[in-house]
Amino acid sequence: MENLTFGQYSLVYNAFSFTFATMAAATLFLWLGRSQVGPAYKTALTISGLVTAIAAYHYFRIFESWEGAYSVKDGIVTASGYAFNDAYRYVDWLLTVPLLLIELILVMRLSQEETVSKSFKLGGAAALMIILGYPGEIATDIPTRVLWGTLSAIPFVYIMWQLFAGLGASINNQPENVRELVKKARLLTFASWGFYPIVYMIPYTNLSGSDVTVGVQVGYTIADLIAKAGVGILIYMIAVRKSQAEYG
Amino acid sequence: MENLTFGQYSLVYNAFSFTFATMAAATLFLWLGRSQVGPAYKTALTISGLVTAIAAYHYFRIFESWEGAYSVKDGIVTASGYAFNDAYRYVDWLLTVPLLLIELILVMRLSQEETVSKSFKLGGAAALMIILGYPGEIATDIPTRVLWGTLSAIPFVYIMWQLFAGLGASINNQPENVRELVKKARLLTFASWGFYPIVYMIPYTNLSGSDVTVGVQVGYTIADLIAKAGVGILIYMIAVRKSQAEYG
Repeated sequence: MENLTFGQYSLVYNAFSFTFATMAAATLFLWLGRSQVGPAYKTALTISGLVTAIAAYHYFRIFESWEGAYSVKDGIVTASGYAFNDAYRYVDWLLTVPLLLIELILVMRLSQEETVSKSFKLGGAAALMIILGYPGEIATDIPTRVLWGTLSAIPFVYIMWQLFAGLGASINNQPENVRELVKKARLLTFASWGFYPIVYMIPYTNLSGSDVTVGVQVGYTIADLIAKAGVGILIYMIAVRKSQAEYG
Repeated sequence: MENLTFGQYSLVYNAFSFTFATMAAATLFLWLGRSQVGPAYKTALTISGLVTAIAAYHYFRIFESWEGAYSVKDGIVTASGYAFNDAYRYVDWLLTVPLLLIELILVMRLSQEETVSKSFKLGGAAALMIILGYPGEIATDIPTRVLWGTLSAIPFVYIMWQLFAGLGASINNQPENVRELVKKARLLTFASWGFYPIVYMIPYTNLSGSDVTVGVQVGYTIADLIAKAGVGILIYMIAVRKSQAEYG
């Protein structure tokens, strides 16, 4: 592991701790909110809370792995010899990214058939995208990273296209008081997801060593916060407004 | 313990962490879902969640036992001298496998008498199957493994026969909107259970050393994910649909 300054080490350390706390808080907020929405929206809140719960678990592990990977004494950071386990992010995404798409589909309250078919299509594409990205993430050379990154981009583009074209018609059928919110949730998903490939490509730039490590860790953390806790709160707002309109 | 590469060690390590997270998430999903089904189906969801909760506990222990069994420093994996405790799987199965069959029986909503009799028959056979398999799993020679594996196969075949012949008539009496789902749950149980004996037989092949260890651990983990979390989600879907039809 490359040498980090104390400031760089602390920035990542505190970002991980902050994210654990935010994800755990979002989970409790979403699950406590289940009692305030109509039956049709409870599953959307259950799953939004699962996404942040799974993320909280992994940020707890990532935090501990980061702490274990370095020895910090008298303001000097040295590698401890214990590897930082980057795979936690990928196993987290393998679970949470399909669920994130499913929570978006659930809150739209499509027909049962459409819900199941869209969930399988988008969830499956999301899992494929994560699996294809991983070999590139752990690759030590740039061409391998580019190869797997590009393969992973294929399901990524498919999902983005489905979110806009495939779900577009359904969004226009949403009640007027939530249509803008549903569009915002979709846009926030789009914007935060667009962040991941940018972070993935940091090593392509002429940044190097510890700057890459810090950029990648902080970048993925910000993207996770928006995609999971941020979108989760929007899902809650949509569920509350639709419940008021439909259940009174 | 044989020497593992860092990649092999990490694969098993991350598979265990992923499975802990998935089982815990499935538990919360199933228990939160209890409020969304009719009274007749609450016990099925309680038990499905118990199965994944017990599995989450054991995967947490297995993860820690794996971590303790090896020292990993500077990318080199060496045995620490502390044994990896394989028995966690068997005590898990002793509890969860009978419960898995009971959740399948419960969601079918048979008569009380039939529910109790089938639960005892299938649950008892499942416990016997696990107990007979264990001496073979820890055996150091192949003939002993084959002997106990074959004895364990007798209750296994009985359960499979009961699932298809014994429950077949009851499945045809299920409401039309869930008949296909119940068949899928039975098929998924069948397919995932079929996986265990295959993994059990890996040491019979000419694979050796660390490949066997990794194959057995990853194989059982995938089978557990499908048999417990996967079947649990199907049980949830069946319970929701039957509740909608029966309770409105």
